[in-house]
Amino acid sequence: MQKIDKIAEAYQLLQQEIIGDIEAADGKGVFSSDKWSTELGTGDTSVIQNGAVIEKGAVNFSFVKGNFSQKMERILGESAQSYAATGISSIIHPENPWVPIIHMNVRYFALDNGTAWFGGGIDLTPHFINPADAKLFHQTLKDVCDQYDAGFYPAFKKWADDYFFLPHRQETRGIGGIFFDRLKPQNEEDFEKLFQFTVSLSKLYPGIYADFMKKYAKKNYSGREKKWQALRRGRYVEFNLIYDRGTKFGIESGGNTESILVSLPSNATWEFNYVPEPDSYEDKTLKLLKKEMDWINLNLNTE
Amino acid sequence: MQKIDKIAEAYQLLQQEIIGDIEAADGKGVFSSDKWSTELGTGDTSVIQNGAVIEKGAVNFSFVKGNFSQKMERILGESAQSYAATGISSIIHPENPWVPIIHMNVRYFALDNGTAWFGGGIDLTPHFINPADAKLFHQTLKDVCDQYDAGFYPAFKKWADDYFFLPHRQETRGIGGIFFDRLKPQNEEDFEKLFQFTVSLSKLYPGIYADFMKKYAKKNYSGREKKWQALRRGRYVEFNLIYDRGTKFGIESGGNTESILVSLPSNATWEFNYVPEPDSYEDKTLKLLKKEMDWINLNLNTE
Repeated sequence: MQKIDKIAEAYQLLQQEIIGDIEAADGKGVFSSDKWSTELGTGDTSVIQNGAVIEKGAVNFSFVKGNFSQKMERILGESAQSYAATGISSIIHPENPWVPIIHMNVRYFALDNGTAWFGGGIDLTPHFINPADAKLFHQTLKDVCDQYDAGFYPAFKKWADDYFFLPHRQETRGIGGIFFDRLKPQNEEDFEKLFQFTVSLSKLYPGIYADFMKKYAKKNYSGREKKWQALRRGRYVEFNLIYDRGTKFGIESGGNTESILVSLPSNATWEFNYVPEPDSYEDKTLKLLKKEMDWINLNLNTE
Repeated sequence: MQKIDKIAEAYQLLQQEIIGDIEAADGKGVFSSDKWSTELGTGDTSVIQNGAVIEKGAVNFSFVKGNFSQKMERILGESAQSYAATGISSIIHPENPWVPIIHMNVRYFALDNGTAWFGGGIDLTPHFINPADAKLFHQTLKDVCDQYDAGFYPAFKKWADDYFFLPHRQETRGIGGIFFDRLKPQNEEDFEKLFQFTVSLSKLYPGIYADFMKKYAKKNYSGREKKWQALRRGRYVEFNLIYDRGTKFGIESGGNTESILVSLPSNATWEFNYVPEPDSYEDKTLKLLKKEMDWINLNLNTE
C-alpha cells in the first residue's frame, strides 16, 4: 500500500469524525453526503444546510490522481508525469453574524518522481472581530504547533497573513490563523511528524468552532449585523474566486464545480463605496483586518 | 493633440449621453458621479442605485496611462515602454427579474511604439431567456455591425460566445451579443471606421436597454423569480471575478477597486447542487445557455 493510500484512508475517517463533532455542536443540522467519482478520482462532499447555528457548511474529502500538466509544472516548479492528492477541506458559514466563518484544510500531494508534501491550515473570519477571541484562537493554534515544532507557529501565522489577503482591498480576509504548504518530509520520522500534525489540526478544528457556536449562537442580532455579514461575505467571495489557490486549481483542473464552490456563502452583497460609520464595530473590525497583528501578545486592557 | 486624447474626449461625452438616456428610461433613478484621479489617470464612475427599474447600474469612463509591465507584455504579446487607454464600460442590474442584465464596453488602447487597437462589445444576460427577444437583440447588433463591415457580426458574435463562457459550468453567461478586441487600424480610414463603430455601439446601447425596461419593468414577479435572479447573479459574479479580463487587468494593475467591482450585482446567492425543475422556465433558460446558438435564424414557431 502506498503512503498516500494510507493517508487518504486516515483523512476519510477524520472527515467523518469532524462531521460527527460539528453535527453534535449544531444540534439540529445533519450533513448530507454527496459521494462523487470521476476519471480524476473520488470524493465525498458533505454539506450541512440550515442547521440551528450553521447556515451552510461543508466537510469535503477527496482523493484524486492525474497527469501533471505543464501548467502545474510551471506553478509548482516541479517536473513529473503524474500526481496524486488527498485532503480534507471544510468551511462553515453561520446564520448568526456574531459567530465567525471558519475554514480548515489538510492535504498531501505526491508526484510520481517521489517528491511529496503536506499543506493545510486553519483560519478564522469573524464578521465582527473580538480581540480576546482572536488572541485565544491564535494561542490555541500555537499550542498545537508547538507540540510539533517551535518554528511552526511563527512561520505559518505569517504565511496565513500573506495568503489570506485581498491586495485590491488592502485587507486580510479575517484574523488569519496558520497556513502552510510544500512541507516536504526529509525522512520517515519527518513524514510521520508532519502527517500527525495534519491529524492534530483535523481533530482540533471542530472543537474550536464548537466553542464559538456555544459562545455566540444565542447572541441577538438585527438587520444591521446581517447587512454587515452579507458585505463581509462579499469579500469572502472575492477572495475565493480571485485568489484562493485551491479554488483556482480545482476549477482549472476540471474538478467537481459544486464541490469546489460549496465554500461560497449562501448569499453575499456588494454596495458601491460602502464605508461604515467611524468608530462603529464595523469600522473597528475593518481596521483590524491587517497583516502582522500580533494577536497572541495583544494587551487587551489597552485596546 | 494625440488621437487618444480626441477619443477620450468623445467617449466622455458619450458617457454623459448614455447616462442621460438611461435616467430618462428609468424615470426615477439618478446617477451619482464619482470622479477619481490617481497616478494612473482620471475617471468618472457614475452609479445609479435603487431607480424605478434599475437596482444597480454604472456607466464608467476612464483615461489612464502607465508603464507597460512585463506581465502586459506577456499577455498582449506586444513590447512597449508605456501605454494609454480610454474607454466606457457599463453594466445594469435591474430589480425586476424579467428585465435582463446588460453590459457594454468600448475602449481604445495605445502603446508608445505606435501600435493601437479598439475593443468592446454589447452583451445581454437575461435571467429568463425569451428566444424572440434574443433574436431581436442579435438582429439589432447585426444591423449596426453590417453598416461597417459584413464580417463583423459573425466574427464578433462567435467571439462573445467564446468569451462570455464559464467553462466550469459549461454555460454561457447569457445570450452573448458581440465582443471584439485588438482591432488594429490599418490606416487613417480604417481608424475612423473603427472609431465610429464604437461610437455607434455607444449610441445604440441605451436604446436597446430602454426597450427591455419598457417591455418588462411592470411584469409581475414573485419570490420564485427573485430566487432565480439571485442564483443567476451568482453566476455573473463567478464570471466577473474568475474570467473577466477587464476585471483582472483592473485589479492587477492597481486600478480603482470600487469602480472595477461596481459591475457586481447588489446581491448574489449560491445553493449547493441546485437543479431547476425539469421543463420549468428556469430549466429551459439553462438549456439555452450554450455557445453557437444561431439566434437570428431561430425559427420561433418550432421552439
